[in-house]
Amino acid sequence: MSVTLSIDAMGGDHAPRMVIAGINRVVARYPDARFLLFGREPVLTPLLSRFNRVRQVAEVRHADEVVDPVAKPSAALRSGRATSMRHAIEAVACGEAEGVVSAGSTGALMAMAKYVLRTLPGIDRPAIAGVGPTIRGQSVVLDLGANVECDADNLVQFAVMGEVFARKVLGLDKPSIGLLNVGEEQHKGNEAVRQAAAILQASNLDIRFYGFVEGNDIAEGTVDVVVTDGFTGNIALKSMEGTARLFTHILRQALRNSPFGRVGGLIATPALQAMRKRVDPRRYDGAMFLGLNGVCVKSHGGTDAIGFSHAVGVAIKLIADRVNQGIKEDYAKLRGTDPTNVSKQQVINSR
Amino acid sequence: MSVTLSIDAMGGDHAPRMVIAGINRVVARYPDARFLLFGREPVLTPLLSRFNRVRQVAEVRHADEVVDPVAKPSAALRSGRATSMRHAIEAVACGEAEGVVSAGSTGALMAMAKYVLRTLPGIDRPAIAGVGPTIRGQSVVLDLGANVECDADNLVQFAVMGEVFARKVLGLDKPSIGLLNVGEEQHKGNEAVRQAAAILQASNLDIRFYGFVEGNDIAEGTVDVVVTDGFTGNIALKSMEGTARLFTHILRQALRNSPFGRVGGLIATPALQAMRKRVDPRRYDGAMFLGLNGVCVKSHGGTDAIGFSHAVGVAIKLIADRVNQGIKEDYAKLRGTDPTNVSKQQVINSR
Repeated sequence: MSVTLSIDAMGGDHAPRMVIAGINRVVARYPDARFLLFGREPVLTPLLSRFNRVRQVAEVRHADEVVDPVAKPSAALRSGRATSMRHAIEAVACGEAEGVVSAGSTGALMAMAKYVLRTLPGIDRPAIAGVGPTIRGQSVVLDLGANVECDADNLVQFAVMGEVFARKVLGLDKPSIGLLNVGEEQHKGNEAVRQAAAILQASNLDIRFYGFVEGNDIAEGTVDVVVTDGFTGNIALKSMEGTARLFTHILRQALRNSPFGRVGGLIATPALQAMRKRVDPRRYDGAMFLGLNGVCVKSHGGTDAIGFSHAVGVAIKLIADRVNQGIKEDYAKLRGTDPTNVSKQQVINSR
Repeated sequence: MSVTLSIDAMGGDHAPRMVIAGINRVVARYPDARFLLFGREPVLTPLLSRFNRVRQVAEVRHADEVVDPVAKPSAALRSGRATSMRHAIEAVACGEAEGVVSAGSTGALMAMAKYVLRTLPGIDRPAIAGVGPTIRGQSVVLDLGANVECDADNLVQFAVMGEVFARKVLGLDKPSIGLLNVGEEQHKGNEAVRQAAAILQASNLDIRFYGFVEGNDIAEGTVDVVVTDGFTGNIALKSMEGTARLFTHILRQALRNSPFGRVGGLIATPALQAMRKRVDPRRYDGAMFLGLNGVCVKSHGGTDAIGFSHAVGVAIKLIADRVNQGIKEDYAKLRGTDPTNVSKQQVINSR
């Protein structure tokens, strides 16, 4: 499938080298993909000369500036018009590319993408979605940090977007949706989650709403889509990353601290490597900004070529599976139920 | 040290057997501890006859009813006057016992404890605190679910309580305090965390305020005390528990799926057991309700005798270390700074 992606070649701690090396890994898998590389031409052109495969499918577009990774999103939006990130997003807005990938600042990317691409009809705020491993397979969690505060309608919109994503990209027939809460009982949580649950229960959308799920359900894979506000989602995801690191640390220490541990660990090396591969965060690189008029994928700031190649793969898949079209259609259906009325009615009933 | 604890002998999935068996494990370590066991006398007395050591230091107090584990906290508070949980808490209020331990419903225990024991002067809301393993040792996180919504003053109070706890119970000289947020920069997060940070920075309390921390910092042990609202804290903690389970699952699978994995895993068994022991959740059983006029500890609902014995140990330690006295003193100091004015001023300055 022929697709053109615009790439912020300067975003990320190890850019632009890991960007080009990452695309080099993608070229073999997606021979029909084309790339617009935004960044400093005097840096990018010599670099490209060392990646012959990439050079054949990529075009360098000069951008003078780079987004400061610690700048406030509002500042980046205001004064970042000449940056590689901004130019890369604009290529999507004007139709030159179908999606953009950047490993630069999440906040700046979200602010610029929202401003330049605008949200899909019916979506008030885009959300950041991520896929991760679970005991049963994998699941998608959103929002991972775009919206610190969310009301019930935002959460409902995230549920719709997550459902479409899980269906189209993860290939699930009828994905189940859970709302993240501090308990499964109906009375638990804050007003926003309770009201969102009421709306989802009453909606005529053809979705499988499971109800509330708790933190442990994310990794256990109780549902395919976990919906939450950006504050909680960001903290939950990072808490899980920290725990994975703690576990790896303790495992390594345990195996090192005794002769039997060392011998056993050595013999089990291939098995332990297989395990490490399964939970390798680079495999899950590529957080999706859902709800925008155009595909926008954020790669991890500290990523390497392998991680970046996964993020590019995610963008290609989002385009190929027409996820934005699906969100638009499903949200139009939901609006038929008049969510505002439903929510008020439900909240009164549940009291 | 002589201490009397009142025990809800009927709370928890495996009560009352695991409660008595748990206390049986504690008796050896704390020979001077005495126990008031609240619950159904016809059940408890025969059970006690099989635990001679416990019988010598425990007294059965009949209570007709048991709190329904799925009842709303408000319902349990209203109609639970004859329950073992309520009677156990009342023993603390009237001075018969110095602390209470229950593995019953968290919400009911909090509602009853708040109503019967009242909060310490200056503390608006009690918080649930838990201790967990980190890469650097261990840390305390609060609130883990008592308060779904928190304002800046609540968070500041949690910081004070957590600091005293880490100093007195974990034995840390000058524990560092972090506020859980979605980024380390000053502009990140919601109004409550930003304002709480401003108050803590400006306070004349002799505490080591680190600033904002992120989810991964919990397991990494970046700070000794992690402060957050009960919604986020509960979800973060459970997300971490789920990840630990996922990791254990993947490790087991990896070791089973290949001959080398099986052999290596077998040889490394003692090392792997040592690791399992280090992260065994039963070692960290015993969530503390801080901020009440009296010690109140919640054991995990699904806990066994080993877990319950840890929770009892936590209660004894809280009493021995006079944690409540410390909270009272520190909070009195903080009030000297007039937190309300400080917060307003700081927020204006930081804009």
